[in-house]
Formats: sequence, structure tokens, C-alpha cells
Amino acid sequence: MADDRFHVYDTTLRDGAQQEGLNLTVVDKLAIARHLDGLGVGFIEGGWPGANPKDTEFFRRARTELDLKHAQLAAFGATRRAGVKAADDPLVAALRESGAPVVTLVAKSHDRHVELALRTTLQENLAMIRDTVSHLRAEGQRVFLDAEHFFDGYKSNPAYALEVLRTAAEAGASVIALCDTNGGMLPDELAEVVAAAVETSARIGIHCHDDTGCAVANTLAAVKAGATHVQGCANGYGERSGNANLFTVIANLQLKRGFDLVPREALADMTRIAHAITEVTNVTPNSHAPYVGVSAFAHKAGLHASAIKVDPNLYQHIDPAQVGNDMRMLVSDMAGRASVELKGRELGYDLSPDTSRVLVDRVKELESKGYTFEAADASFELLLRDTVAGDRKRRHFEVESWRVIVERTRDGELVSEATVKLHAKGERIVSTGEGNGPVNALDKAVRLGLEKLYPELASVELIDFKVRILEGTHGTDAVTRVLITSSDETGEWATVGVDENIIEASWQALDQAVTYGLLRAGHIAD
Amino acid sequence: MADDRFHVYDTTLRDGAQQEGLNLTVVDKLAIARHLDGLGVGFIEGGWPGANPKDTEFFRRARTELDLKHAQLAAFGATRRAGVKAADDPLVAALRESGAPVVTLVAKSHDRHVELALRTTLQENLAMIRDTVSHLRAEGQRVFLDAEHFFDGYKSNPAYALEVLRTAAEAGASVIALCDTNGGMLPDELAEVVAAAVETSARIGIHCHDDTGCAVANTLAAVKAGATHVQGCANGYGERSGNANLFTVIANLQLKRGFDLVPREALADMTRIAHAITEVTNVTPNSHAPYVGVSAFAHKAGLHASAIKVDPNLYQHIDPAQVGNDMRMLVSDMAGRASVELKGRELGYDLSPDTSRVLVDRVKELESKGYTFEAADASFELLLRDTVAGDRKRRHFEVESWRVIVERTRDGELVSEATVKLHAKGERIVSTGEGNGPVNALDKAVRLGLEKLYPELASVELIDFKVRILEGTHGTDAVTRVLITSSDETGEWATVGVDENIIEASWQALDQAVTYGLLRAGHIAD
Repeated sequence: MADDRFHVYDTTLRDGAQQEGLNLTVVDKLAIARHLDGLGVGFIEGGWPGANPKDTEFFRRARTELDLKHAQLAAFGATRRAGVKAADDPLVAALRESGAPVVTLVAKSHDRHVELALRTTLQENLAMIRDTVSHLRAEGQRVFLDAEHFFDGYKSNPAYALEVLRTAAEAGASVIALCDTNGGMLPDELAEVVAAAVETSARIGIHCHDDTGCAVANTLAAVKAGATHVQGCANGYGERSGNANLFTVIANLQLKRGFDLVPREALADMTRIAHAITEVTNVTPNSHAPYVGVSAFAHKAGLHASAIKVDPNLYQHIDPAQVGNDMRMLVSDMAGRASVELKGRELGYDLSPDTSRVLVDRVKELESKGYTFEAADASFELLLRDTVAGDRKRRHFEVESWRVIVERTRDGELVSEATVKLHAKGERIVSTGEGNGPVNALDKAVRLGLEKLYPELASVELIDFKVRILEGTHGTDAVTRVLITSSDETGEWATVGVDENIIEASWQALDQAVTYGLLRAGHIAD
Repeated sequence: MADDRFHVYDTTLRDGAQQEGLNLTVVDKLAIARHLDGLGVGFIEGGWPGANPKDTEFFRRARTELDLKHAQLAAFGATRRAGVKAADDPLVAALRESGAPVVTLVAKSHDRHVELALRTTLQENLAMIRDTVSHLRAEGQRVFLDAEHFFDGYKSNPAYALEVLRTAAEAGASVIALCDTNGGMLPDELAEVVAAAVETSARIGIHCHDDTGCAVANTLAAVKAGATHVQGCANGYGERSGNANLFTVIANLQLKRGFDLVPREALADMTRIAHAITEVTNVTPNSHAPYVGVSAFAHKAGLHASAIKVDPNLYQHIDPAQVGNDMRMLVSDMAGRASVELKGRELGYDLSPDTSRVLVDRVKELESKGYTFEAADASFELLLRDTVAGDRKRRHFEVESWRVIVERTRDGELVSEATVKLHAKGERIVSTGEGNGPVNALDKAVRLGLEKLYPELASVELIDFKVRILEGTHGTDAVTRVLITSSDETGEWATVGVDENIIEASWQALDQAVTYGLLRAGHIAD
């Protein structure tokens, strides 16, 4: 179990799930809890048993299906209703019966919210807090309190907001998390309020939202002001602009402030865990996420590339391996020879100076025509292989011709059909495919035709297709850039094509996508 | 022109363009500059003339094509090379000749970077700064200095880092922006270094990256410590985890710190501007962006619904109208009834409450399928006219069928051919067009066919074509959105089509483009 002196408290399964478009099943929640435990967080808030049947089931199944190594589960719920005993409130009973070692009670600390939302008196609200905390403590659970709207409440009525903290602490709440529920705070002002709260001698936690883009900084400011419990969500999930990104908070505190929050090996697995959680939530990963984003350590500037070779640490704020990420060099028109060589080495090729000069010239020439290689690693690798091979370069297949027809018939039916004529392994192949659009039809025709000779293509799939029109001042002069992402059972790759004709551009990207898929499957062209 | 006492300095076109996957054409850059000027930023850094031919062209075209109301253009570039005179350095000459009123020079302020990346002495680096600043000042340009790697440099050698500031200020640089180039700083430590820099009595600016998730908070901390010039990028674009999001910085400073940075009406247009820029960059907008994200004021209300009705301000940190956003704004909610009525009036229609209700429902339904009307005024007006006309709606032409063939022949020739069969003015028209791509061919076929009946179509031209693949919602397949801009002798208009088939989506947009062109020419369909 984690050290109790400083808490890392995750609320992805409860507050994170408030994110627009996020819908977690019980199985999803169990999977995410395992990932978070793998990272080494101290507490995982599982949901609100009693209020939400899915969350009741989560806690029930967690007892047998979750074997947590580091984390303790916390059940979230409200203080008793006004005018009833805590022991008689069915929602309080559900918290008791959840089996969670920790209960986190949400309580109002803003006078106007007590009056308008709770519709009770300030005194009764204090009694509700006191009773519920003492009752659950007496029943053997540890109790944390989320002081909702605390910062706005402190502005409205500081004496009452602090009275809420004292009441909860005296009743036995071991942590009181101050919630910036509306997310409007900035770090300096927030730190002052936290310092005032710390003076009550209650143990203080912090719960921030990102409505000012400062959730992480607010969390750090609270810690500096004396908070010893930080709440947040995986990947910054949450309502509106999201909650504090717990991964960023952990990395900042551990790598830059010397806190010992999670095991070093677990931190070195954080990038993988962050992405694994996006697989469960089905939310597109943020490539720009600090520390764990795909782009977080990617460098484009050719200017720096030569110096990066000398000392990478001059150009990155931490060693990306500490969080399981990697420095990447992007090949772009701003890149010179140094970055092409670095990229080549990353791909496992040791390029001679001559070869890399030729390659840089080709990259520059192609990029001036609209190609981009930073988002098309596979196209770059094919170009690199062709450059290394020189006159000896070979193709898995040669194209004789292709034709695409898209038609809306008199009866309104939409038909897309493609025919390709190819030569491969000494055979001539004529193959036709239908699809829901011209590129889909072309893709089907090619793969159908080649599958007889290369059965591995059956597992290759076109999974994304991006189109960009470059230089749009005169419709006819514009060129179209197509980026295609393909996958097989073990990974993904991206290829690029450029032409004024969108179908030809798509064809180029498709041709490379299939070629690269064959290389991955171990086929050397002959 | 903006007040000079506090600078809002945008570097989207230079540092923002370093973002992985972002590739801006000159036309894109001009369009973004207009949007930023509309927001009222003080300075727009356009790029590095001389080092990048695209940027040289940007400054050339900006002289005649950009009519900036608030902003001044800044040209970015480096100090002179070691061992040459500033007046003889061709890159310095390109800055001089850019015509930009401001030049922002990047200079090393980290001793190890001077030695390893610049490969010169610390003294020569100071001379390079002094000479280049004085030279450009003498030639009549205002000079700002970006002190690269300043914070890491200050840690490495504080005396030298501060000496760089003094040297630049004495030579006449009017602002020295401290750059957290690697983005690793946290606000408290950063503020201390800024305070030390402010003591040199140079005017200090701040330039942050988001590698710790603190770029916005770092910027605010620097301002509190005395910086009077903030740099950032639209939508937080930038290398790795991005630059400080300039929109978040502006909103925080203006709405929460009382700064008067941009006109109030412009701030109230910020959400629209942020999204309009994503249309140019073709980067998916971040729905969770503070202030301007689609989800930024969206509530999964549940528990609080009734209280939100009593007093919405209890549940939001600012009034979203201040930044042009909306509470509970959904994807389809760009069109509330009020804005549809307003838009209708703008177009010269006085809509009855019933009609606008029907129209809002149609807009919402279509937007949920991926249509967007904000960037397709002509499509919106056609929808409005159809709604007003109800059963009496008429078309200038009816489509029987169309077919597009794109073919690469055995001898490598690329052919695009389209045939349309239409009915107009009682005639059946069969018309074939060739083009450099399928959409161009379709466009030619339609206009060729209709020109006999509507000669005005000869002056209608397709001038821009944008394609975006939208992720499927609710388990549906991805769909393609096509935006077409057309022009005639007196103006431009934009139309939109959506389908999983790119050709069908293009057809929809073309059909409307031609219809709208006929309406503009005074043809009422009958």
C-alpha cells in the first residue's frame, strides 16, 4: 500500500466520467482501475454506489475481480439528507455497504449553494456533515470530504467555508479536499485560500478543474501551500474543460519537485498506461499531452537537429524514458541532414553522408511539392530504402493501369467501383472492388488482387484517411495531399500521396501502404 | 493600434507552425493573420523571411493583401552570424527588407547553447546581439528579442543570462521575451527568474511552452512578476505539447485580472475566431479548450439542473457570452433560435417563430450528421429559403444521374471525366466534362451543361475546395465533409456537402454552389 503522508487520488471513474461523450461500462471501469493501480496511485474513486446502479455493481464486482496492489477503492456519495438520521438514509447505507475502505463525501461549503441547491439552513448543513462523517467512521470506514465549490464559497462567506472544514475534521474526516468545482481559479489566489484552510489544522486536499487552463498549476500551488492530497483524472478527463490531468501532476511532482509518489518503474510505464486507458474510453489520445503525448518529445526544427545530436538534454526538459516516452525527430522542410540521419538511425539504418545528402534533397524536393513526411513515417522509410537501394530497388508489384468509377444512377443509387491491372510474381492480375467511396473501392481492388499471392494482406486494413488541399487560390492549381493510416495485427503505419487529382494522390498513398504492409510481413521484393 | 503598455504577441504563424502535422500555406497564414487581427492582438509574428521562401512570400503579399486594423506584423529571425557584420548578413538583410515594422530576433542566452549549438564564444554572442539590434534599429525597425532557453540558461549561468538582457536592452531592443524553450518550468520558480530579469530594468516579455501543462499559469506568473508582453499561439498550437494558448491567456488576464487587452466585442467573438482558425489549419478543434471549447460550458447537469435554472452563475466561472461561448452548448448548438433569426434578418428574411423553429431543428439535425453552416453561408441561405418556401420550393435544375471516371491508363496518362444528366427549363441535358480531378470534372460538366440556359454561369468559378474526414459518431462510419468556395465577378460564397463517399459529398456542395450562383445572378427557380 502507498505511503499515507501524501495521497494521489484518482477520480477518473466518477468525475472523469462526467466528460461529454464518455460512457464507461462496469467492465471499462474495472479495466481502468487495473491500469491506475499499475501506475501506483493511492486511491481510486469508483463511483457513487446507491445513486447509480452501474456504480453499485462496480463495487460489488470489484470485491472479487479487482486485485489491487497499491490502491484503495473510495466510494463517492453525499452527506445525509436534511432532517433524517445518517443511519436511516438509504444513500448513506449504500456507501457503508459498498465495502470500500474509504468513503468520500461531497458536502456544500458555499453558503448560497446550501440555500439554493440544498434548500436547507447553514446550521443543518453542518449537522449533516458531522452526523454522516461520524456515522461512517463509527462503522469502520475511513472518510474523506470533498468540499464542493469551496473557493467560490470562501469568496462568498469565508467564515462559513472554514467552519465546514473544522466540522468535518472534528467529526473524523481524515482529509478535506477543497474543490474548485467551477474551475475558475488562478494559482496565486487559490494558494492564498488553501493556506487559510491549512491553518484550520484539517488535513487539506485539492481538486481542480481546467476551465482557466490552470488545473495542473493550481494543484501544484495548493501542494506548495500545504495540501497533502491531490485529486485528478487520467488524461485530464472530466466535465467541461476536464479535471486536473493526474499524469501531468504526478510527473511534475515526482520529477521536478522530488516527491516519491509512484514506483519509478511504474512512472516509466506511464505513457503506455495513458494510451491503454484511451483504448478503454475510446477517446482519441491527445497527441500534445504533456509527458505522455505522442508529440510530447517530437522535434521539428531543423535548426536544432545538429545540436540535438551533440546533447539531447539541451533540448528536452526531462529524459522521456522516465515516463516511458521517446524523443522523435520529425522530418520536415525545416529539417536538414542531421535530422534525416537521426531519423534513419531511429529506423535502424546507418546512412552514409552521401546517401543522407541525396535523401535530404529528395525530401526537400517532395516537400516543396506538398508531401509531408513527419506524419508519414512509412513513406519516409520507403523513400529511404529506395535511396539506399539506388538502381537495385525493386517493387512487390507493378501497376499497369487502374480505373475508378463513381456513379449516381437514375434511381438514386450510389455506386463506387475500381479496377486495377497489376503485375506481380510474373502474373498479370485484373481485379475489381466495390466500396463506399472511390478510395475504399481502390483499396479493395488492390488487396483482393494481391491476396492470392500475398495472403498476409488479408489482415491489412485502411483505418484512417486524411485529405488536405494545398494552395487553394485557384481551384485548378491546387494539389491534394492524402494521408492514409493502415494497420495489421501488430501495428499501424502512415503513407502520403500528393497530386492535383485526389484519386491519384490516394492511389500513391495506397500503393505505399500495401508495399509497406508487405515489408512488415517479411516480404522482400524481388 | 493597440496600447503599447502591455503587448499581446501572437506567434502562431511561426512557432505554432512547428506543431506536428501543421503545415500552413501562405494563403492559410494570411487568413489566420486576419482572424487574429479581428481578435485585436497587438503583434502577429509572420515567420522567418529569408530563411524560409514561404515566409518571404508571406511578408511580400502581406503588404498588399493584409489590411490590419489592430496588429503590427513582426518578422522573426536570428542575430547575425559570428564573424560578419550585421549589415553584410543576408539573413539580417531579409529581415530589414521584409517591410515588417517589428523584427523579433532570437538570441541564445544559455552559455552551453552558445558553445554547443552556435559554436562561438560568449563574448561574440553578445556582440552579435548588440550589432544586430543596433543595425536594425538604425534602419528604422522596432526590435524585440527572444532570449532562447533563458530559464535553463539562468540556471546554468545567471550572470551571463542577465548580461544578454542588458546587452540587448542597451542596444535598443524594446522588449526582451524570456523563452522557456524546452517548456520544463513550473510557475513558482519561473516567477523568481522573471523577477530577477525585471530588475535589469529591461522591458520583459514571456514565451512559454506547455510541457509541464503549465504554459498558461507560467505566463500569468510572469506577468505578476513584472512581464508586460505575453507571447502565445492560437489554440495552443506549437511543437511538442504546444505553446501557451493565447486565447486562454487573454481571457484569464482580461476577465479575471482586469487587463484591457482586446476590445470587448472582439473577446465576445473569440469562440468563433478560435474555431475559424481550426478550419484553416485543418486541426480538429479541442472540445475541452478553456473558454472556447465546445464543451467548455457544457454540463451533464443531472443533480444541479434545478439550481442551474435558479442561478446559472453558481455553476459557471464566467458568463460564457463574454467569450462568445454558450452554456450547455452541444455540437449542433451553434444555431440557437436567436442566432438563426438574427442570421435570417442579416440575409434579408424576417422569419416567423414557427419557421425559425423548423429551421433550427433542421440545422441541428444536419450538424449532428457533420454539416457545418458557420463556414457555409450559402448552404445556410439555401436551407433557409427551402424552409420558408416549404412545399413550394423549386430548383433551377433537377439531376437525373451523374457518373465520374478517373483512370490511369497503361501509358501512364491520368484522365478524369464526368457525365451529368440534368433537367432544366423543360430540357434534358447530357453533358460531359474533363478535369484535373473528379470534382473539377463534375464542376465542368454541370456548368457546361447549364451554360446554354444560364450564360451567367460562365463567370462562376470554383476557387477553393476543402475536405475533412469526420470521425463517426454513435458507431456510424466516418463521413467526409467537403466545403467549396465559388466566386463570380462580384463576390464569393461557400457551400457544404457531407457523405461517406467523397464524390457524393462534393456533388452536394457543387449542386448548391451552382444553385446559389444562379440566385445571385437574379434567377428565381420556376
